[in-house]
Amino acid sequence: MNGEQRTILLTPGPLTTSLATREAMLRDWGSRDGDFIALTARIRSRITAMAGGEGTHSCVPIQGSGTYVLEAAVGSFVPRDGKLLVVVNGAYGHRIARICGIIGRQMTIYETDENVTPDPARIGKILAGDLSISHVAVVHCETTSGIVNPIEDIARIVARAGRKLMIDAMSSFGAIALDLARIPCDVVMASSNKCLEGVPGLGFVVALLDALDASAGNAPSLSLDLHDQWAALEKSGEWRFTPPTHVCAALDQALAEHVREGGVVGRGARYRGNCDILVDGMRALGFQTYLSDRDQSPIIVTFLTPSDPNFDFQEFYDALHGRGFVIYPGKLTRIDSFRIGCIGDLHEADIRNALQAITEVLEEMGVENRAPAPIA
Amino acid sequence: MNGEQRTILLTPGPLTTSLATREAMLRDWGSRDGDFIALTARIRSRITAMAGGEGTHSCVPIQGSGTYVLEAAVGSFVPRDGKLLVVVNGAYGHRIARICGIIGRQMTIYETDENVTPDPARIGKILAGDLSISHVAVVHCETTSGIVNPIEDIARIVARAGRKLMIDAMSSFGAIALDLARIPCDVVMASSNKCLEGVPGLGFVVALLDALDASAGNAPSLSLDLHDQWAALEKSGEWRFTPPTHVCAALDQALAEHVREGGVVGRGARYRGNCDILVDGMRALGFQTYLSDRDQSPIIVTFLTPSDPNFDFQEFYDALHGRGFVIYPGKLTRIDSFRIGCIGDLHEADIRNALQAITEVLEEMGVENRAPAPIA
Repeated sequence: MNGEQRTILLTPGPLTTSLATREAMLRDWGSRDGDFIALTARIRSRITAMAGGEGTHSCVPIQGSGTYVLEAAVGSFVPRDGKLLVVVNGAYGHRIARICGIIGRQMTIYETDENVTPDPARIGKILAGDLSISHVAVVHCETTSGIVNPIEDIARIVARAGRKLMIDAMSSFGAIALDLARIPCDVVMASSNKCLEGVPGLGFVVALLDALDASAGNAPSLSLDLHDQWAALEKSGEWRFTPPTHVCAALDQALAEHVREGGVVGRGARYRGNCDILVDGMRALGFQTYLSDRDQSPIIVTFLTPSDPNFDFQEFYDALHGRGFVIYPGKLTRIDSFRIGCIGDLHEADIRNALQAITEVLEEMGVENRAPAPIA
Repeated sequence: MNGEQRTILLTPGPLTTSLATREAMLRDWGSRDGDFIALTARIRSRITAMAGGEGTHSCVPIQGSGTYVLEAAVGSFVPRDGKLLVVVNGAYGHRIARICGIIGRQMTIYETDENVTPDPARIGKILAGDLSISHVAVVHCETTSGIVNPIEDIARIVARAGRKLMIDAMSSFGAIALDLARIPCDVVMASSNKCLEGVPGLGFVVALLDALDASAGNAPSLSLDLHDQWAALEKSGEWRFTPPTHVCAALDQALAEHVREGGVVGRGARYRGNCDILVDGMRALGFQTYLSDRDQSPIIVTFLTPSDPNFDFQEFYDALHGRGFVIYPGKLTRIDSFRIGCIGDLHEADIRNALQAITEVLEEMGVENRAPAPIA
């Protein structure tokens, strides 16, 4: 492995990828050539199988970031006279709601605090009280805080109420179990550059075949029309428009590595290991986590900002960057905190090295009290 | 150079890129990190300068294929009560018109045959006759046939009529001159993976600052809102949503190579050389071009299908593929023909090798008469 090129990204994506995944981008592909058509088919069938959707669902890739996928899915699957209940406890739930406003889909919000999981029974009551709601959207793991939402319980309630479920599994897909053979769900939305460890530029839905069939003519966009994209892929195997060929090739390699690691179980176990080492190490340094351990995903961890006046986030970030570790610069809206990711091609030694760097930086900065200020 | 990884793509994109451009993808980037913010700024200023738009225009990158860029530009710059005149002589003009229908923008079409350039005077008459037309869209080089449209004359007519011009320069930008210091134009739309020789997954507009200012609230999309994207980039230097970091890094390297080759003049001269060798060689083999030499771009050439009953396009394609040359499998709608591209990191020897392969394949197939059937 070429050490110079390896960047340690302790972020929720883009993330550190394997050298083999990056090397898969060293070849140019004709996007309408048979070799690339086969590569696309391989990606689609591997992802559908990973979600437990074989025979019932189909993977439809779409170029763009996670937001493109959310917009494509809401526009394509919620009909123009439909209404979406958006379950919100962070920025990504809010983003789905914002998309509804912009593309013109009726919606209503059920919101809880960023460290509180939604109550499935409450969702049942909302659905019983508003028969115009056709779809429910929920984020599996909210990257805002790192919280895992109870999607299985929510899926049961939504199905019992006869509505359709859309799961934003952007930062969980491939590492936290989501089995469509057991969980009633129309649409799962995810991305190449989170737990699948591809590079950014590509996302996908895994959608119920019936839902895809019914989605013709819904989308208020050409580029983001998932029915049109699905129909073209089924007909010729070709993308409608030039795909990001190198990004697709990287995902193809990354998926092969996912299989080799033992699939969702193996990948999830490594991330859980990374997360445990990180949380234990940070607690030993005096930090506190924002979430309770019960709700904490192995994807990204939110730590409360130390009350010590010597702690300055930008200085902390820059000093870690100087040591080769990039943490996430984004912040929560309400709670003073910072976040460190556990995902990507990172292993025990990387996390231990990061903890060592954090220890050194805190000493340099003279941050002695790592506990947060008491909440007012 | 690693010969095994080099694919010769004689297509209009994705195309053959340099090894250094592909190697730029061997590094992972934090998308909100200072290093990547600097890379984005460098790309934007290089492209704005290349278009002659310094001080008047700004480059706004947007993730996706060329179609995403067209949709983003039409949605962001044509106001909801505006009307677009689309000048059509091929598939890409039709695509702009189709986008208007889907996203709900009024439009009217002025169409000529695929081998006929539009008449600027006729555009002037259409504008004089319909004062509700606010914008005009024209394709610089129609990849459908390879024809170059007279954008300078059209720009003058559109400006004189007090309307705003949008140029789809997807397959010409960086190789055929387009100087915004001389040509009145609100918006140029282009892509990373044509004459700039980056990899696919990224496009951009170079838009008049006044037009960007006036575009707030127009877009019927979050992902494809160019005003929102521009405002975020100006404010923090960061992309709103996860960018395709590796694709951006490849473009950054490709732009450095473009400068080193002598910019638009140097790049255009190499492509013109490739095109001349190709056309001369194919004519020597008995083929005829679809376009007159006057209208032929150095980007892609359409050859009429030989009338010899032994010529079968799929067999021809597969045999060339077996020799390492990928030509474009797409076809014109009306005329029996096939296309060979001249762009990408291709040089004289590549084109001569391709001609040699074509010669051998035709002999193997027993295609003796390479002239087309007389047009009925």
